[in-house]
Amino acid sequence: MRWLTSLLGMRKMKQWQVDPRGNDGLALVEVDAVERLSSREVRIKMEATCLNFRDQLLLSGRYPVGEAPVVPLSDGAGEVIGIGDGVTRVALGDRVVSTTITNWVDGDFDPEMQSESLGFTVDGWLAEEIIVPETGLVKIPKEFSFEAASTLPCAGVTAWNAIIENAGIGPGDKVLTLGTGGVSMFAVQLAKMVGAEAFVTSSSDSKLERARALGANVGVNYRTHPKWDERIRELTSNHGVDLVIENAGTLRQSVNATRYGGMVAVIGMLAMLTEGSSPPNNDLGGLLRTGVTVKPIMMGNRRMLSRLVQAYVRHEVEPVIEEVFPFNEAPAAYRALSAANHMGNIVISRG
Amino acid sequence: MRWLTSLLGMRKMKQWQVDPRGNDGLALVEVDAVERLSSREVRIKMEATCLNFRDQLLLSGRYPVGEAPVVPLSDGAGEVIGIGDGVTRVALGDRVVSTTITNWVDGDFDPEMQSESLGFTVDGWLAEEIIVPETGLVKIPKEFSFEAASTLPCAGVTAWNAIIENAGIGPGDKVLTLGTGGVSMFAVQLAKMVGAEAFVTSSSDSKLERARALGANVGVNYRTHPKWDERIRELTSNHGVDLVIENAGTLRQSVNATRYGGMVAVIGMLAMLTEGSSPPNNDLGGLLRTGVTVKPIMMGNRRMLSRLVQAYVRHEVEPVIEEVFPFNEAPAAYRALSAANHMGNIVISRG
Amino acid sequence: MRWLTSLLGMRKMKQWQVDPRGNDGLALVEVDAVERLSSREVRIKMEATCLNFRDQLLLSGRYPVGEAPVVPLSDGAGEVIGIGDGVTRVALGDRVVSTTITNWVDGDFDPEMQSESLGFTVDGWLAEEIIVPETGLVKIPKEFSFEAASTLPCAGVTAWNAIIENAGIGPGDKVLTLGTGGVSMFAVQLAKMVGAEAFVTSSSDSKLERARALGANVGVNYRTHPKWDERIRELTSNHGVDLVIENAGTLRQSVNATRYGGMVAVIGMLAMLTEGSSPPNNDLGGLLRTGVTVKPIMMGNRRMLSRLVQAYVRHEVEPVIEEVFPFNEAPAAYRALSAANHMGNIVISRG
Amino acid sequence: MRWLTSLLGMRKMKQWQVDPRGNDGLALVEVDAVERLSSREVRIKMEATCLNFRDQLLLSGRYPVGEAPVVPLSDGAGEVIGIGDGVTRVALGDRVVSTTITNWVDGDFDPEMQSESLGFTVDGWLAEEIIVPETGLVKIPKEFSFEAASTLPCAGVTAWNAIIENAGIGPGDKVLTLGTGGVSMFAVQLAKMVGAEAFVTSSSDSKLERARALGANVGVNYRTHPKWDERIRELTSNHGVDLVIENAGTLRQSVNATRYGGMVAVIGMLAMLTEGSSPPNNDLGGLLRTGVTVKPIMMGNRRMLSRLVQAYVRHEVEPVIEEVFPFNEAPAAYRALSAANHMGNIVISRG
Repeated sequence: MRWLTSLLGMRKMKQWQVDPRGNDGLALVEVDAVERLSSREVRIKMEATCLNFRDQLLLSGRYPVGEAPVVPLSDGAGEVIGIGDGVTRVALGDRVVSTTITNWVDGDFDPEMQSESLGFTVDGWLAEEIIVPETGLVKIPKEFSFEAASTLPCAGVTAWNAIIENAGIGPGDKVLTLGTGGVSMFAVQLAKMVGAEAFVTSSSDSKLERARALGANVGVNYRTHPKWDERIRELTSNHGVDLVIENAGTLRQSVNATRYGGMVAVIGMLAMLTEGSSPPNNDLGGLLRTGVTVKPIMMGNRRMLSRLVQAYVRHEVEPVIEEVFPFNEAPAAYRALSAANHMGNIVISRG
Repeated sequence: MRWLTSLLGMRKMKQWQVDPRGNDGLALVEVDAVERLSSREVRIKMEATCLNFRDQLLLSGRYPVGEAPVVPLSDGAGEVIGIGDGVTRVALGDRVVSTTITNWVDGDFDPEMQSESLGFTVDGWLAEEIIVPETGLVKIPKEFSFEAASTLPCAGVTAWNAIIENAGIGPGDKVLTLGTGGVSMFAVQLAKMVGAEAFVTSSSDSKLERARALGANVGVNYRTHPKWDERIRELTSNHGVDLVIENAGTLRQSVNATRYGGMVAVIGMLAMLTEGSSPPNNDLGGLLRTGVTVKPIMMGNRRMLSRLVQAYVRHEVEPVIEEVFPFNEAPAAYRALSAANHMGNIVISRG
Repeated sequence: MRWLTSLLGMRKMKQWQVDPRGNDGLALVEVDAVERLSSREVRIKMEATCLNFRDQLLLSGRYPVGEAPVVPLSDGAGEVIGIGDGVTRVALGDRVVSTTITNWVDGDFDPEMQSESLGFTVDGWLAEEIIVPETGLVKIPKEFSFEAASTLPCAGVTAWNAIIENAGIGPGDKVLTLGTGGVSMFAVQLAKMVGAEAFVTSSSDSKLERARALGANVGVNYRTHPKWDERIRELTSNHGVDLVIENAGTLRQSVNATRYGGMVAVIGMLAMLTEGSSPPNNDLGGLLRTGVTVKPIMMGNRRMLSRLVQAYVRHEVEPVIEEVFPFNEAPAAYRALSAANHMGNIVISRG
Repeated sequence: MRWLTSLLGMRKMKQWQVDPRGNDGLALVEVDAVERLSSREVRIKMEATCLNFRDQLLLSGRYPVGEAPVVPLSDGAGEVIGIGDGVTRVALGDRVVSTTITNWVDGDFDPEMQSESLGFTVDGWLAEEIIVPETGLVKIPKEFSFEAASTLPCAGVTAWNAIIENAGIGPGDKVLTLGTGGVSMFAVQLAKMVGAEAFVTSSSDSKLERARALGANVGVNYRTHPKWDERIRELTSNHGVDLVIENAGTLRQSVNATRYGGMVAVIGMLAMLTEGSSPPNNDLGGLLRTGVTVKPIMMGNRRMLSRLVQAYVRHEVEPVIEEVFPFNEAPAAYRALSAANHMGNIVISRG
């Protein structure tokens, strides 16, 4: 069919491609827009896309995917501008956000779903247009900005999955989150939304101050308190917190900061927080008599994203966005993420 | 040993007893205080005790217990003034509240626990002093008043059990509660605490107005809207709510007001709301294709009461108390409950 | 493209279509095979397909779908003979069975999935070939017959969902199933597989005898014992069973036959068992103090089907198949279902 | 009252006491029987009591309790020979088994319950008589031997808690248990009861042979296969098992042997299996991307013991008992446990 479409005059669009030879590992190129949507596919005009730590790992070749996709970024929001045969869940003109894994609708993650991971195994959001199967979409209402929506799929859903779906945190409970990145700031906001207390660590007092301004009840500086787990115990009458969002490779300290019967939710890859963190400690020998469950959390499904959208729409809380970069300056957004001076999320908009 | 204690001079105390010949079914009598605590028993000076609908059923002989106990009322709070052998959970001077069923510590209710139901199968709180096994106690902090604490064990824990433990309601979800009694007002407050929307019905616009002032998002007058279930669907884009707290004998309408996959939590005995309510409708024939789970909720255990205390202490929300009566005027409190003009809870204090 | 394919000479295949003017509401017709698979679609040569009660309701116009599909039947198994672009879950030559709702992979049913219900909203299995999205398929090993596999998707998964996933039945528990149809016979076998006791009702002593031969521990004739709920209580030291699989429109009796804290799983549509059953009774007024949860079960997802296949492959138990009809005699299979003299499942094979 | 009882002539009974100076850390002494039961207490004539690994740790001072109790052993069964005031759950002549922690009725373990841990914080079963609060008792039927019942409370309930309550193992699932001690043999039997496959490791081929005779499907010798986790993956088409019962301090290998989304249930104290085992490995760094939940299991509550009793009574399976020693030769039973040549349980009977 190619020659047919070509005869009709091909539409062009711009996208950033992963390119080791490019500017910061990225190259801005103009490509032919794929005109023909398969059945159940939806074309979306990208309005905003959000960076996560793993996007950076991908560029530097440290994320464990086989072959890198052409277009990076898993999180984004935009407007529906085309629909394939049989699409029933969205219509032209709808404002939508996508799940990071477009065929993960409900229930548990299954490794076979990995083949539909936006920005990792299939082309992602860092382009003027993206084509996504309708199974991956959630509608957003007018009063919710594209920038805000774009932060939810990875960081927001991960925090939701841990706090609401897995740990069942409720009013009066206590949640500890490590550092002040995207997931952590969602953890603070969601803990507050369900009536819990939020504890946060950082190496920077000024970030802790900002975290408190955003709702955190207690901040602990892990440089001043390298034994931050002991500090958390002191601050909780020696009980420990109900849940730790562990993304720093400090499993042993996180378990020790948790109450008997509580949970440590391990995010992503026991990550290498670039802002620096406590030295790695993940040996649990002798520690499990503490009765703490250690559970890996791998983002989340569409049902969770849908509930999360509803929650943020309902509440007068905005996701924390540090800075919004224009599409043409995408590499600058990656550099800002790298510098790790931000709190919350870094977003790229259509510009 | 009786004669021994007697020789030592018996201490007296006052208590209200269930007495069909008495004033409104109650008689105020002076009795010898039981001096000898068994092992694990705790003596408490009653400071506040709270009435529930089933307390009224008991007085009028409509509550299905075998033989009525001498002293009524299941909910109360006070100060520890005596401890038996082996007591480790509380100490003299502690401020405490009790579970309604003193041996229900955690997990599910088991009918064999019924034998330790305060105010129903064993003597309850409507007395100057009460003796309770330590398994039934939860400590309350100084900043929490006895009156507030006394409202939690039955009405508060029931709402907590339904909303937090069973339905797992979270931010952005929707909860409907029927009427404006004790359980309903807790349902409104807890729904708000976990970030959900609260819907409430009543036959009185002024009560709906007050409910809104207390945080309810939406009120529906069931006299104006006898098909209140249809009204709820309209107000929720025809989806229905996530949870209905059903205490009005209107199961069919409650199921109809609930979204596919949601829950109807049936409180108590599909009760006879004295303020009047929709005509009973509990036939589910043909309705279950709606995918709604119907689950009876029978108050709750000590772990729930403990979490609930923590939640109210944490938040700057007070349980809704309509009126506080002095101990000597207990029958007036029962009459106020009967009149059903109140919202929330009616409390009797030491006075 | 139609004219292109047509030029190439269209392949023909036979299928039964729903046709009110046809033989028993069905007509056997020859149609052009759809040659072009969309992306992610799989073509399957039907080897066996199984009837369920709702298939019969469809033919007689009593099943609540909008417009009937052309080809009926939701359950089937066969061999993969064609794969569309992007298919990764199965390969040519694989033996497969499909879920009844082909986009229900995991988690809860969502009404929007209804649009992909085989034999109800899209063409089903009563054809020589069927095209199914790969999301709906589960592989079956060689040692498992197509006939056996075809019985699992609706009846088998429903029983699995109720017993294993929802009620968490384990060794020593008690399960009651009403009647001796497809779901009921799976309920008996699964209850036994997890070490529970199986109770079954029927109007026929000879069917009860056969049920016992298939593993049921206790049979109750509901003609002899119209108060079969009371009979079940007697047989369980007055405790009641842990789970009732309710598919007879007798909710009130089912709740009464269940222990405090147990569950009644309501199957399908509070169905109209054709073999006759107790008079309908679904009013729960006053009954919920029994602490029994009433939960509708709507078949199940692909993860459940996958676990079920593994379970039957592992165990030396065969699904109960009453009779296998050849493809050309499909109406006879429907008539056999109607006659309701069978136990377990009725299957149609390629023949 | 002491002098009173003494006047009446004190009854004597024998008990083994923990005594560092004694024979193998134990001394057989004759003591006055405590005649006066407190309210809710039950006196039991010990008929059988069972040893667990932690009982041995206690004798050698390696179990972390404050002060050792006088009488060891947490698991036992016998006949009720006395009941205190208010006892309603058992009667004289009843055959009973006790939970290891007598106030843990349902729900989660709470550290404050530790104060009622038989044989650890209060006197245990290695005596002719024991006094237990009625909350800790479960009745056993006549057809179930005291010896069999005595093996259930610690080892049996632990396996039940992991397999049935936490991991929700069902037909077709796979369970791996490490070694052939008490918990492991229950794990094999319970896995089979719920229709799952049982995998077991050992350093001894003859033990693996016996394990297979008892129902295990697959045995792996961890001397022959020091990388037994890789061996398990090979044997499961590289998927891994659904659940590992981890009691060997080899968390890293256990996680590696588990499928994505599965569970490792950590028993007790990441124990020091005396028969020798793989070198300790508990560092989870980098491993949690496997999606495996690590959950500590701390025996279980009375509801679980009650379900377990029902399960064993129902099935024609006997707990695995290696040897029964008479009461007078208790130290020999401890030595047999130490020698670690046994499979399953070692029991001491009244003799």
